[in-house]
Amino acid sequence: MSDSAHREMWEKLDMDLEAHDALLAVLGTFYGDIYLSQENRLKGAEYLDFVLSEVHGLRIKELEQAKAEGRKVIGSFCVFVPEEIALAADAVHVGLCAGAEAGTELAEQLVPRNTCALIKSFIGFKMAKICPFTESSDMIVGETTCDGKKKAYEAFNEIAPTYVMEVPQTKTAAAKALWKTEVLRYLAEVEQLTGVTITPERLKRGIQVANDKRRALQRLTALRAANPAPISGRDALLVNQISFYDEPIRFTTKINELCDELESRIQAKEGVTPGTTPRLLLSGCPMAVPNWKLPYIVEGSGAVIVGEESCIGTRNSRDLVDESGDTLDAMIDALVDRYMKIDCACFTPNTERLDNVTSLAKELNADGVIHYSLLFCQPYAHETLKVDKALQSEGIPMLSIETDYSMEDVEQLKTRVEAFVETLA
Amino acid sequence: MSDSAHREMWEKLDMDLEAHDALLAVLGTFYGDIYLSQENRLKGAEYLDFVLSEVHGLRIKELEQAKAEGRKVIGSFCVFVPEEIALAADAVHVGLCAGAEAGTELAEQLVPRNTCALIKSFIGFKMAKICPFTESSDMIVGETTCDGKKKAYEAFNEIAPTYVMEVPQTKTAAAKALWKTEVLRYLAEVEQLTGVTITPERLKRGIQVANDKRRALQRLTALRAANPAPISGRDALLVNQISFYDEPIRFTTKINELCDELESRIQAKEGVTPGTTPRLLLSGCPMAVPNWKLPYIVEGSGAVIVGEESCIGTRNSRDLVDESGDTLDAMIDALVDRYMKIDCACFTPNTERLDNVTSLAKELNADGVIHYSLLFCQPYAHETLKVDKALQSEGIPMLSIETDYSMEDVEQLKTRVEAFVETLA
Ligand code: SF4
Ligand code: SF4
Ligand code: SF4
Ligand code: SF4
Repeated sequence: MSDSAHREMWEKLDMDLEAHDALLAVLGTFYGDIYLSQENRLKGAEYLDFVLSEVHGLRIKELEQAKAEGRKVIGSFCVFVPEEIALAADAVHVGLCAGAEAGTELAEQLVPRNTCALIKSFIGFKMAKICPFTESSDMIVGETTCDGKKKAYEAFNEIAPTYVMEVPQTKTAAAKALWKTEVLRYLAEVEQLTGVTITPERLKRGIQVANDKRRALQRLTALRAANPAPISGRDALLVNQISFYDEPIRFTTKINELCDELESRIQAKEGVTPGTTPRLLLSGCPMAVPNWKLPYIVEGSGAVIVGEESCIGTRNSRDLVDESGDTLDAMIDALVDRYMKIDCACFTPNTERLDNVTSLAKELNADGVIHYSLLFCQPYAHETLKVDKALQSEGIPMLSIETDYSMEDVEQLKTRVEAFVETLA
Repeated sequence: MSDSAHREMWEKLDMDLEAHDALLAVLGTFYGDIYLSQENRLKGAEYLDFVLSEVHGLRIKELEQAKAEGRKVIGSFCVFVPEEIALAADAVHVGLCAGAEAGTELAEQLVPRNTCALIKSFIGFKMAKICPFTESSDMIVGETTCDGKKKAYEAFNEIAPTYVMEVPQTKTAAAKALWKTEVLRYLAEVEQLTGVTITPERLKRGIQVANDKRRALQRLTALRAANPAPISGRDALLVNQISFYDEPIRFTTKINELCDELESRIQAKEGVTPGTTPRLLLSGCPMAVPNWKLPYIVEGSGAVIVGEESCIGTRNSRDLVDESGDTLDAMIDALVDRYMKIDCACFTPNTERLDNVTSLAKELNADGVIHYSLLFCQPYAHETLKVDKALQSEGIPMLSIETDYSMEDVEQLKTRVEAFVETLA
């Protein structure tokens, strides 16, 4: 597809071509510095490079084709919005979280300054008209997780109509009942949007496709327990990021191929860094494309990242939906159960997360954990202290980083990360 | 009651006498400057002065007496915890929100720095052992309203066992069903704590007592529509603050007496300031004792405050519980309905609040609104923009103030408030 065809498509989506060019330029430089400069990279990373380079190009073209065939595009900001339901209705489910500063000033007209970078970014992307996924979406789905998003959707709704699901704040039986009602309400809404009646067969297929994707990601997670680390944290993060954009069946195939390659590497005792490299688990807030700031700093400080305990990481892939049910009701219950296992910091209490972080750190043979929270993210800031305590009691060192998308604190973060890595070496 | 008897009581409550002395000293100076210096004060203000001066003394003594008789004390932080249920079980229901900086540094060991002052204050008061209400409580009840409190209760629970009610985030039928479950669960918990079975008669009585209190506060609100303003905003705020501490039947009697006096004043066209004084409505986050900072600044800037659209104000008194039901189930439904009318910024959507602020400003003949949010309070920060728009469309000017409990910004706030008041004169 030619560059001019891309531009035509973006123009049709009513995007701001100039602002978008600026974004792509920054993204390209970033990607070159952070990704293409890596040594011992996998052959399978070609897929990652290609998808990323065409994320606003060929992939949007695919969405346009799907729409031309009468299919719908559903955008969301949280792993609580059940992809299975979109898949069951032949819709395309995409993530709209954004990881760049572009548009932040615009966003501050709609949401308070003291809002996390992720929220400002998706609002800013919409206001600046630089996100083709947002512009392609036939339906945008929010959720009542943190205060920041819950209230931001009210403002966002004024510029992009947003359907909101209520995610409860506890996991009691009554809270689960509320969530089930919300899942059913969403299912009906998707049926109406798509004109597709979601039969048990369709939902079963949707569950299988989403589970297959998770199984591939689980396989990747497990392989990263090997020493030396067979894949860089940057590439693994990219895999997780791409899982929110690419076509799920293609993605699953490609990631399984990548895992085959990792297995050969592991057999050959090859890695991206020597076996003596300190191994770190990242834990906390999700890192949306192109937020590669912290992984770049960490892996530039002589450590290797072996896992991401976040929603763009294991929080999204850890739990499968039970596939044994055959009736719609049984499948809905299986969905509800699976989604209520998500250990987001928005829940209270959320002690599962402490167990999950600790066991993941051990399974992946991590030498330490970096807890990452976005400035002004209250749920994860609160849990920082708890995760630290839980890890301490297991003798696993932790460094807490609170930052945003700006590059101003990079040198300061480097110094702190390097000092932490030194204590582990 | 002698000072030494008070000290003995505080010591028994395991309070830190030295830190508490320091708090009382600051509070005394504050009160003198902000309250006792007022001109044209009401006779009924003697009650306010007395209650405030004995809020940690005689009132705590009363709680101790109630406990000696086998009654229980229940502390809460939000107007969502139904006082009616405590009253039905002969328990004493008190507010534990705090409005002073004491203990903030301690609190920052348990909750993030970027937490609103109200939360840091109640946690700090507990850690510093300076709140006799917290120390007297047999049960402390939290709720899942904002992220700040929701997560802070997890930390607070480690130093003071806290029962948490789930408040939903929307007002759909399913959300109401969740809230009903929570009200019933709380009722059972209170029954267990107190050993009292809550009969329909008991609950009816509890509803009446709480409604009577609200009716007295509604009467006060309505009288403040008069020009010249018959009561200062500071005194009216104090009335609302005291409503969370004093014995409810006594409080209701005293406030009705105070309203009688206001009526005579209004008849005589007397007021606390001339009829030409700019009239302001405060709107936003609750102001807990002794947070009198903004009212002091506003009323020192040539304006008079005629209403408080907050939980320590009309949000707590506006809606009554329907008293017509006779069965327990009907009364519970009436409670659920009443509480789900609360227009807290934690809900999404929360358009009722925009209507309520606008109509209140008109009813009270306010010339303008000061929207007040605590620094790091995301729900109210988000709504600032919306309230501003709603008021603008009605031609009512608004000033937005974001602050905390520190005195550092007083001069700066004064300048801004004075400039705003000048535009209204
Ligand atoms: S961290 Fe919580 S709110 Fe954010 S995407 Fe994950 S589940 Fe959703
Ligand atoms: S990073 Fe935190 S504040 Fe931001 S959207 Fe996620 S949970 Fe909300
Ligand atoms: S503002 Fe909301 S959270 Fe705070 S006391 Fe009122 S209802 Fe509760
Ligand atoms: S002021 Fe805001 S952040 Fe603080 S407790 Fe109330 S709602 Fe929560």
